[in-house]
Amino acid sequence: MAGNNHNGTPVYKRIQNAIRKRIEAGPANIWRYAPLLPVPADVAEKPNINPGWTKLVKADNLARALGVTPGKLFVKDDSGNPTHSFKDRVVAQAIEAARAFDFTTLSCSSTGNLAGAVGAAAARAGFRSCVFIPHDLEQGKIVMAAVYGGELVGIEGNYDDVNRFCSELIGDPAGEGWGFVNVNLRPYYAEGSKTLAYEICEQLGWQLPDQLVVPIASGSQLTKIDKGLQELIKLGLVEDKPYKIFGAQAEGCSPVSTAFKAGHDVVRPQKPNTIAKSLAIGNPADGPYVLDIVNRTGGSIEDVTDEEAVAGIRLLARTEGIFTETAGGVTVSVTKKLAEQGRFKPDEIVVIAITGNGLKTQEAVVGKLGETFGIQPNLASLEAALKTEKLLAGVAMG
Amino acid sequence: MAGNNHNGTPVYKRIQNAIRKRIEAGPANIWRYAPLLPVPADVAEKPNINPGWTKLVKADNLARALGVTPGKLFVKDDSGNPTHSFKDRVVAQAIEAARAFDFTTLSCSSTGNLAGAVGAAAARAGFRSCVFIPHDLEQGKIVMAAVYGGELVGIEGNYDDVNRFCSELIGDPAGEGWGFVNVNLRPYYAEGSKTLAYEICEQLGWQLPDQLVVPIASGSQLTKIDKGLQELIKLGLVEDKPYKIFGAQAEGCSPVSTAFKAGHDVVRPQKPNTIAKSLAIGNPADGPYVLDIVNRTGGSIEDVTDEEAVAGIRLLARTEGIFTETAGGVTVSVTKKLAEQGRFKPDEIVVIAITGNGLKTQEAVVGKLGETFGIQPNLASLEAALKTEKLLAGVAMG
Repeated sequence: MAGNNHNGTPVYKRIQNAIRKRIEAGPANIWRYAPLLPVPADVAEKPNINPGWTKLVKADNLARALGVTPGKLFVKDDSGNPTHSFKDRVVAQAIEAARAFDFTTLSCSSTGNLAGAVGAAAARAGFRSCVFIPHDLEQGKIVMAAVYGGELVGIEGNYDDVNRFCSELIGDPAGEGWGFVNVNLRPYYAEGSKTLAYEICEQLGWQLPDQLVVPIASGSQLTKIDKGLQELIKLGLVEDKPYKIFGAQAEGCSPVSTAFKAGHDVVRPQKPNTIAKSLAIGNPADGPYVLDIVNRTGGSIEDVTDEEAVAGIRLLARTEGIFTETAGGVTVSVTKKLAEQGRFKPDEIVVIAITGNGLKTQEAVVGKLGETFGIQPNLASLEAALKTEKLLAGVAMG
Repeated sequence: MAGNNHNGTPVYKRIQNAIRKRIEAGPANIWRYAPLLPVPADVAEKPNINPGWTKLVKADNLARALGVTPGKLFVKDDSGNPTHSFKDRVVAQAIEAARAFDFTTLSCSSTGNLAGAVGAAAARAGFRSCVFIPHDLEQGKIVMAAVYGGELVGIEGNYDDVNRFCSELIGDPAGEGWGFVNVNLRPYYAEGSKTLAYEICEQLGWQLPDQLVVPIASGSQLTKIDKGLQELIKLGLVEDKPYKIFGAQAEGCSPVSTAFKAGHDVVRPQKPNTIAKSLAIGNPADGPYVLDIVNRTGGSIEDVTDEEAVAGIRLLARTEGIFTETAGGVTVSVTKKLAEQGRFKPDEIVVIAITGNGLKTQEAVVGKLGETFGIQPNLASLEAALKTEKLLAGVAMG
């Protein structure tokens, strides 16, 4: 009998096996975990974009590049979601809450990924949508927010200004009937991030990862991943053992990393200045909870420069064929830093959460990928280029 | 006993059920069909990007917009693949052939999507890569081709020029040891498109679709989808019944559509001029086979303008929350045209193949999505905007 539950007894083992089998027989999306989420039992029948069950990729090439034991490093690639970020997971919960509250318009403050997720989910589920973003986002995120046909409002200010404005709007008659997924629907919304933890454990063969690296924006995702792991332990679906959660921030917006390094338990707001705009939350609501969890589990928090973020994007692409956005570049480079600091135990599993797609932040890498060579469509032109350029230098030529 | 096989006998029914069960228990990617593909039995153990098992979305909102019976229209959304197009399916086959032939460099001629798929797959599988593209592709496709670290060569010419050049290179010592996935590895490569047909049938509950709309570039995909359906019929995994395959082209590159409408059985090359660059193959290798299949099944081929392609992108996004590239916009708008022509039988299933992601062809929709409104982060600014602009006109305000 482990701890204060009955997980060790034979009858519980049988029940736990039955639950695991039932989950495994469920749909290839987050609704396989519907009983653990704040959604109605018939959620899978309703029109929604059905995110989740994204790939957990064994990343041996990246492991070798980072000095982590090959076979032990995994990338949870959430760019496989319908709008190519983890935000589809949280919006899917909020949509169900919005139905229950009879909201007619779905809204949010967003650094970009959330705006696209809300627009797409609202379109399919039959809600109107109106999303608020900082005016200076990347083109890919603006296009994705606008293409689904909802209203898009650019706010002259940063994310924290946008967020404050949305809170104000909720108290105003103008916001009547509006569900702001990450404000007045936040308690439902946030639960969606637990599915990342569920999937990682199930995909590892129903076991806890030993070490997890998660980017920090508001901090909500990291805290809910921890909650998801704790739930699986309590249900006996995974064996209880220690795990460490590590946080990743961009140096240009590192309020939680700064607090962690200084040993503080409160987070002092910063004015963001980083290309990792989806992490550019200067006043992260869940910062103190993140500090608690990282300290409790024995993890740590690091930050990297914008240059290192771009290097992280390139490294993941060149080793595993996965093209992530700036936030993912931050996470990869923080993982590199943690490995160099000797933070990971060899032969223990490391999972890194890659939460968005590189096509949305193309600007970050354009001009940094080496030259593209232009030639005429004939062999003479190729041969001339070979003489004068380093074209194909790295490739075996006859 | 149906036709010249034994599919109707009880023992065959049991065998067929066992095969279906075995496939269903397989991995959530194309390797669930490995025995039907030109790959080694242990393919799933090797490093590759494991494409496939993308969503088949019941598209009731789109059905209503197109005048198709709701409940009967499905979108096969192949933007869920690792590099967000169906090309991952075909490259995954070519990689295995390249291993078998001891090629060290993976190459291709590409209109963009293939370059990204080759780059990513090569990176993960440990091949060098060198891809050849027309010099004027969309930024998203160039970035995706370059980010994985392979060589990228822009050819001054269109896709047909690039393709001709690659054929020339294969005969030259410079091409020694190179596997061009869509030239000298093409017989293996092309088989990957069969998996689209397998998945559609399995996802429909092991039945044939009645009507399929597929975009035509080289024509290979359409012919291999037909081959895949025929294989499932021969194996008795689906019940044999008539189905129709329809083809979609852009008006600015419509050699197959033109031949179909004129009743020709040969295809006269065209010089492409369309924003749907991934369909801009003026001299499609499989054109005559496409004509055969469309005529044999009783389908037809249509083409739409660039403007209609953009309208198709917007329509799919606004109805189903799926953001597709220009080729997908062509397919949606051709489906609209076919529905208006009364080509679809009511109450019969229509599946449309959406083969790529809108983030790669953002240029096509930027500036065509309605204005984004900029305001200050306060209610007064919002209210002022409400008075002077049509901002939020479509949204219920208090």
